[in-house]
Amino acid sequence: MTIGGLIFPGIDQADFTGPFEVLSRLPGAEFAVVGKDLQPVHDAKGLILTPTHDFASAPLPDIFLVPGGSGVNQVMEDEESLAFIRQQTSAASITLSVCTGALVLGAAGLLKGRRATTHWAAKQFLPDLGAIPQDSRVVVDLPFVFAAGVTSGIDAALQVAALAAGEDVARQIQLYIEYAPAPPFSGGTPETSPSAVMQAVNTTLKPIVNERAAIVSRLRQTLFPHD
Amino acid sequence: MTIGGLIFPGIDQADFTGPFEVLSRLPGAEFAVVGKDLQPVHDAKGLILTPTHDFASAPLPDIFLVPGGSGVNQVMEDEESLAFIRQQTSAASITLSVCTGALVLGAAGLLKGRRATTHWAAKQFLPDLGAIPQDSRVVVDLPFVFAAGVTSGIDAALQVAALAAGEDVARQIQLYIEYAPAPPFSGGTPETSPSAVMQAVNTTLKPIVNERAAIVSRLRQTLFPHD
Repeated sequence: MTIGGLIFPGIDQADFTGPFEVLSRLPGAEFAVVGKDLQPVHDAKGLILTPTHDFASAPLPDIFLVPGGSGVNQVMEDEESLAFIRQQTSAASITLSVCTGALVLGAAGLLKGRRATTHWAAKQFLPDLGAIPQDSRVVVDLPFVFAAGVTSGIDAALQVAALAAGEDVARQIQLYIEYAPAPPFSGGTPETSPSAVMQAVNTTLKPIVNERAAIVSRLRQTLFPHD
Repeated sequence: MTIGGLIFPGIDQADFTGPFEVLSRLPGAEFAVVGKDLQPVHDAKGLILTPTHDFASAPLPDIFLVPGGSGVNQVMEDEESLAFIRQQTSAASITLSVCTGALVLGAAGLLKGRRATTHWAAKQFLPDLGAIPQDSRVVVDLPFVFAAGVTSGIDAALQVAALAAGEDVARQIQLYIEYAPAPPFSGGTPETSPSAVMQAVNTTLKPIVNERAAIVSRLRQTLFPHD
């Protein structure tokens, strides 16, 4: 079982490391950490992740992981990355996007007519990329599986594990990683968060969301010139 | 706010990256990723993590993170690492151990009489290291906070975030990382897992648990020679 996971500068590391924790424990898993080149990348908060493969040496995967993060703004307009993603996705039995990784798949032209989800602060961009946004933490529209924001990648990866190797294996991984979550506070979604909390996060995200709006607007004209 | 997080060969990366995701988002956070030296380390499944600091250059932290993984078996008997951990822990306002990171704190002689928890497959070792094991996913016995296995580090880190910067900040981080978990299967603990699942995981863990039993037995004689 070959798994490929994309990393890039400005990745949100947990979009990648959550699913890595689950999928690297599939029986016989070989996990390729794939960068555009072999240089280490810094995540949005500075964690250094190092590729094991570059685009040229990456194996064709059975499962392909596309994480998000502020750095997707660059990836969405990088034709070399988008071509690589198309190639990997067409080889893979399952492509798992986490968080704003879905926007990258959209930029690659892979979401037309697909049910999908992404981080709550990016959901408004899905229709312009051809997708049909869903109100669900995990959306399975095979061969794609979409996770909402960041930590939902763990939930989605366990579903991918079950699809790839059966429910018993997924439950073994869930037990090993002791995944019986107990958040100390209610919240974690716009609907369940106090409005002051929502406002504070929106203020923090505003510059990157605005930049993303301009990118999506440009991409829309290229992807769907006749709409 | 200075945060120090220990990494070592054979770390379980999610013990580290889960709390990193939360704590690196505290206001004014500077996160030092600390290795014994500056060499990249491979996690238990091969993910490469790279230190920003070695023991000699690490800052004294406000919050200190001690993750677990199969590699703790080496750390528990490495006097240089244990001395560093004692130094960091005595400087920090909060020390967060995740998973078998608690065994490392025990090996450093820091757990005598403390209420603590760790990964379910390591809990039997806590009494020999002086701690009083608790049936709880997160145990707060300040200045220590203990998380159970792997993913419980996210729950515990949100509690640490609230202790360090207030509940509003913790809720903002929880919303940003969209932490409203929805595991696809029941389970995630020995009590809630089918017995065949439990047996399979126990079989996988057996060699490392046996090795750990011998280490703890040696440590017990050094830590509590008169018991």
